[in-house]
Amino acid sequence: MIIDCHGHYTTAPPQLGDYRAEQQAALALDPAHVGEKGAIAISDDELRASLEPNQLRLQRERRIDLTIFSPRASWMGHHIGNAHTSRFWSEHCNDLIHRICGLYPDNFAPVCQLPQSPATGVESSVHELRRCVEELGFIGCNLNPDPSGGNWTGPPLHDPAWWPLFEAMCELDVPAMIHVSAACNPHFHTTGSHYLGADTTAFMQALTSGLFRDFPTMRWIIPHGGGAVPYHWGRFKGMAEEQGWQTLDELMSNIYFDTCVYHQAGIDLLTSVVPTDNILFGSEMVGAVTGADPDTGLFYDDTRRYIENADLTAEQRRTIFELNARRVFPRLPVSTDAPETSAAT
Amino acid sequence: MIIDCHGHYTTAPPQLGDYRAEQQAALALDPAHVGEKGAIAISDDELRASLEPNQLRLQRERRIDLTIFSPRASWMGHHIGNAHTSRFWSEHCNDLIHRICGLYPDNFAPVCQLPQSPATGVESSVHELRRCVEELGFIGCNLNPDPSGGNWTGPPLHDPAWWPLFEAMCELDVPAMIHVSAACNPHFHTTGSHYLGADTTAFMQALTSGLFRDFPTMRWIIPHGGGAVPYHWGRFKGMAEEQGWQTLDELMSNIYFDTCVYHQAGIDLLTSVVPTDNILFGSEMVGAVTGADPDTGLFYDDTRRYIENADLTAEQRRTIFELNARRVFPRLPVSTDAPETSAAT
Repeated sequence: MIIDCHGHYTTAPPQLGDYRAEQQAALALDPAHVGEKGAIAISDDELRASLEPNQLRLQRERRIDLTIFSPRASWMGHHIGNAHTSRFWSEHCNDLIHRICGLYPDNFAPVCQLPQSPATGVESSVHELRRCVEELGFIGCNLNPDPSGGNWTGPPLHDPAWWPLFEAMCELDVPAMIHVSAACNPHFHTTGSHYLGADTTAFMQALTSGLFRDFPTMRWIIPHGGGAVPYHWGRFKGMAEEQGWQTLDELMSNIYFDTCVYHQAGIDLLTSVVPTDNILFGSEMVGAVTGADPDTGLFYDDTRRYIENADLTAEQRRTIFELNARRVFPRLPVSTDAPETSAAT
Repeated sequence: MIIDCHGHYTTAPPQLGDYRAEQQAALALDPAHVGEKGAIAISDDELRASLEPNQLRLQRERRIDLTIFSPRASWMGHHIGNAHTSRFWSEHCNDLIHRICGLYPDNFAPVCQLPQSPATGVESSVHELRRCVEELGFIGCNLNPDPSGGNWTGPPLHDPAWWPLFEAMCELDVPAMIHVSAACNPHFHTTGSHYLGADTTAFMQALTSGLFRDFPTMRWIIPHGGGAVPYHWGRFKGMAEEQGWQTLDELMSNIYFDTCVYHQAGIDLLTSVVPTDNILFGSEMVGAVTGADPDTGLFYDDTRRYIENADLTAEQRRTIFELNARRVFPRLPVSTDAPETSAAT
């Protein structure tokens, strides 16, 4: 069975974007605008039409059985508006993911975004995490380490301000993918430098602080192959030894990397330096890079191919494709005797 | 001949740090403090004593002939104080590099730091670059893409505010290593996440803006193996094709990467995806990682070893070890018939 741990709903019907545009228009008039949650009218048929030619088609073509699915990361936009803005928006986005997973329970498992907002605490995020996990069956969350959108003005991940959220994650036994949203700082390109820089930054915050000593059961997935981390594995290993931080081996009790690295040489590096038990198959398909390589005709984000071609045993492949996701997401509601490749609905 | 393109004077006598501490003490009383350049009394013997057991010993042990040498990057601290602070400090740091290269002309070639300062223009940097190159024989500069020290509040590198500096670099025919300094933002670890994130950020700013179309002869070295760039080569190649940016091939007319990647798998990736003509040997030794790997007993920053072990032809190795540095630094004052391994003074 093949589980893709990293998929976002990037193809939502336009009503979702319209709702967001209305929020932003109201905020332009009054930054303290509260408003109401309101409703977004999207039919089940519209949801199906947004997924069938996109994620579901690619699942079939690439023989991916299940995608762990969350709202569009670049649209989380935690820097936009205030705590109310973020709460209403996050609830709507998560409600859509819930509906999708109800329509296609064999194809998608739900992960939520959190209603983070700069200069507010994490209470609202804890509340939404509980709603999603306890009431709606979500199995994880996306945690934005920089809700300021590239200005990096909030508390780092080792600040106690985050602890109520970490405690809830541990209690609920759900992991977080540490994933920023769009950058509003002109220095950063959202899916280029901001995503990758944030991945490396989150890893370093964990490494230098030893925060997992306080949360020994907490699990983080660092997306995009861990940013720059595996490429600089020797640098981090040497720094940790020299500074007396947790060793990388110790950190591997809590930190996992996905395989969203869009060329063979990158995946070969990842699988050669990071322990197999710490790599989760992911593609982030219909995401940052949707095209095919003109040199090969193959799609950059078809990461299954790279794992198939990597120097791995069959058991290692199964570990990356399936078993690690089951360990990291224990609430994953898929039976272990699912067919090797399930037909998409 | 082996030329190390990336060395910093990290072992200066304490008088240099004392001078900086005095600057900071004066600034604590008055952020607008101007003061005077003053003097730093360091004898030639003290300079020799700071280098012989460190950089010069390692050059001998690792058979590196020449190091392109600049002031300590993490101490540039452009966010500290004001334009005057930065000017006096940079002049002193550059003057020391000039003296060192006079004492050891066979071992070191000089690269300057620039007196950048947040919210000021680049005129002072242009002035110092001219002084260093035209009067003191410097062959390049280190350019900090974020003089705010991790707050990323200044103009990106594609902003016309930088153009006078770029024009001077082209006129003088000197490259810049794009190298940040210490981070004063608690999110970032200086030599971990800040350096690597900034490397990736600078690359993306060039890629998305096409700024080299306006400066076709300008050359940048992205240090630390290019941050996350080679590891995500497919991501950047795909994004460039999809967005219609310059292709990576086009960008390779202007951008180079060093080999400051501290493990074999990382160097193997670098040399397999980046054209050989765009890789300059570098170690940044006596820098971020000075220890030896307890698993092998070998020093992490002994990057020559990784290049020797990489799957490269003898000609490719010579290109990386020597020829690229000569092309990128045409003012390098070393004769091409230097002995293969010169004895250190």
